[in-house]
Amino acid sequence: MVSAKMYELGTKKSTIRTIFEFGRKRAAEVGEENIFDFSLGNPNVPTPDFVRDAAIEILQTYEPAQVHGYTVAPGNPKVRETLAASINQRFGTHFAGKNLFITSGAAAAITICFKALAEEGDEFITFAPYFPEYKVFVESVGAQLKVVKPRPEDWQIDFDDFQKLLSPKTKAVIINSPNNPSGAVYSKETITRLTDILKAQGRDIFLICDEPYRELAYGVEVPYVPNFYDNALVCYSYSKSFSLPGERIGYIVVPDEVADFEKIYGAIAGAARVLTHVNAPSLWQLVVAKCAGKSVDITPYERNGKLLYEGLIAAGFECVKPQGAFYLFPKALEADDYAFCERAKKYDLLLVPGADFGAPGYFRAAYCIKQETIERSLPLFKKLAAEYRG
Amino acid sequence: MVSAKMYELGTKKSTIRTIFEFGRKRAAEVGEENIFDFSLGNPNVPTPDFVRDAAIEILQTYEPAQVHGYTVAPGNPKVRETLAASINQRFGTHFAGKNLFITSGAAAAITICFKALAEEGDEFITFAPYFPEYKVFVESVGAQLKVVKPRPEDWQIDFDDFQKLLSPKTKAVIINSPNNPSGAVYSKETITRLTDILKAQGRDIFLICDEPYRELAYGVEVPYVPNFYDNALVCYSYSKSFSLPGERIGYIVVPDEVADFEKIYGAIAGAARVLTHVNAPSLWQLVVAKCAGKSVDITPYERNGKLLYEGLIAAGFECVKPQGAFYLFPKALEADDYAFCERAKKYDLLLVPGADFGAPGYFRAAYCIKQETIERSLPLFKKLAAEYRG
Repeated sequence: MVSAKMYELGTKKSTIRTIFEFGRKRAAEVGEENIFDFSLGNPNVPTPDFVRDAAIEILQTYEPAQVHGYTVAPGNPKVRETLAASINQRFGTHFAGKNLFITSGAAAAITICFKALAEEGDEFITFAPYFPEYKVFVESVGAQLKVVKPRPEDWQIDFDDFQKLLSPKTKAVIINSPNNPSGAVYSKETITRLTDILKAQGRDIFLICDEPYRELAYGVEVPYVPNFYDNALVCYSYSKSFSLPGERIGYIVVPDEVADFEKIYGAIAGAARVLTHVNAPSLWQLVVAKCAGKSVDITPYERNGKLLYEGLIAAGFECVKPQGAFYLFPKALEADDYAFCERAKKYDLLLVPGADFGAPGYFRAAYCIKQETIERSLPLFKKLAAEYRG
Repeated sequence: MVSAKMYELGTKKSTIRTIFEFGRKRAAEVGEENIFDFSLGNPNVPTPDFVRDAAIEILQTYEPAQVHGYTVAPGNPKVRETLAASINQRFGTHFAGKNLFITSGAAAAITICFKALAEEGDEFITFAPYFPEYKVFVESVGAQLKVVKPRPEDWQIDFDDFQKLLSPKTKAVIINSPNNPSGAVYSKETITRLTDILKAQGRDIFLICDEPYRELAYGVEVPYVPNFYDNALVCYSYSKSFSLPGERIGYIVVPDEVADFEKIYGAIAGAARVLTHVNAPSLWQLVVAKCAGKSVDITPYERNGKLLYEGLIAAGFECVKPQGAFYLFPKALEADDYAFCERAKKYDLLLVPGADFGAPGYFRAAYCIKQETIERSLPLFKKLAAEYRG
């Protein structure tokens, strides 16, 4: 009666959802303040005042039809010009408005790219640990996702394994830096080596750069991939940089240098059409243009990351130092990360098993939560570690 | 290199787009005020002040995370409760929040339903004249669209042809009332007869009610289909009722009475997920709940419709009297509606051929434009008609 696949995708409870529901149940039993929920990647730095003020000013001073009317599918032309100029200023690029396609957030941006590019039999490659929706989105456009094994020493790229997975079927490679869940930022060396390998293939392989966390980097540079590689498509979102995840606003950058600009931009328009992203929400298009170049104050995330990292190291955990996003990805204290996360629940520490991200034996701890919660959780992590030492 | 299908869908210029571009070119030559553009279905009644005021109040008084955070995929639970209560009050239904799934407008709503329901080999039926994107959206989910021939005397339903097209492959029937492009509102008799036929099939056939124009009806009742038929899914949008087409906000109603509520609602969630409609824009969810039960003043549309209708009749056109939406669908003055619309261009009258909507020999004139433009166009329609009389 209904599509069995859609029913499965709509109802199979994710691990994070299960953890979330456990957390709600426990909060009702022992009080909200006694639950240490590290499971959710929701920005907790409030939307900046300049975003709110821009929205109010637009609502108060523009003609309603200018604010709330349909825009053309790729987005308001003036907004695209403004955003392109802002990108150019930051990264030394030379984009015009026509190089941008405004989307309803990064999930839409990447899936529109997948749908635009995918042909029968295509493979997409990504790197563990990775955002699990990649698999759902890639498969939904009829392609296959191949996953390069993780490189736990620094969460950069295992190039040997990557080269094994590259094949004539490889249509595109997906990277996510700063990374969810590892918190790693791909270095200039990593990006150079990756793009050198792609260039050496002798055919056009696209590099889809999923960058919702670009602004959240702590003292490290996040290389701008179009400066390294022609066939790069950059997918950006304001969900984290402006703390606007519910408003669904982001964009795709399609540089002039891609293999065939007109073909790719055209296919992106077709994909947005059938995915029924008629246009990105029009008020928010105007708001992000008005706030171009600004972003939230990331020091609360940086402080939280440092606090949790140092606390976990002191408790005896192994963990790569946080570089970006708002996640730590430490080693679990037993090989079975599901069992470890179950045991952590005894202390009301809610953690996500690394296997969910293609990296078993690790766990994700999102630190986009109250500093006080992190402070109060540290003795519990110590107790948990002590339990393992026996 | 890219999906040929997506490229085609993203680049093939639609008739309306071509007309639009002609209009822009002519406006540059002869001045905006000398172009009579009846081609676009954009609401021209401004977004009401109560909508703007609600948005500003929410931005000024709510916690940012409450406004701009992710909502659960089906939408903010309190918003759904409020909208359900408002629907119940208007239509005597008994929906709860769980019966609503908030979407990014009606295009997303209908396509999510198509994707949720479609299985290999399925057929969907709709009625000419019809919104041409139906075909694109139905085919994009792997199903086939069958089109019942038009009934030009009143643009209600040709039931004989409908019964010929019904088959064991029919998964769902799509209706759009008030109708784009005909302006007809399906009467209680039409809905009763349609649902009686569906009930007599002895199996579950869904009735997808695409209702972006529900609020735009002039002195006629628009029957609420769930009161007639159990397997009805109602797709609504605030694009027209609040003049918010660019903000992408609407919903699907899934009544308890559908064949299997849990299966259908679950499949809808899965379809929204793979179409990457993560959640409907969160500010606008709150705004429409705050404005529940209100709508724009439709008298400008009603006045325009009457003015254009009477003017066309006086000029010698044949046309069904407008009942709803903001379109007239008169008979072209020659059998070839494309040739007719080309000839109208000589007078800078921009009209859309009926063949684009599956009803050759007619044309669409959207009257959601300035009253003055309509007034000044009437002598030109007269000249055009005189030309045909020779």
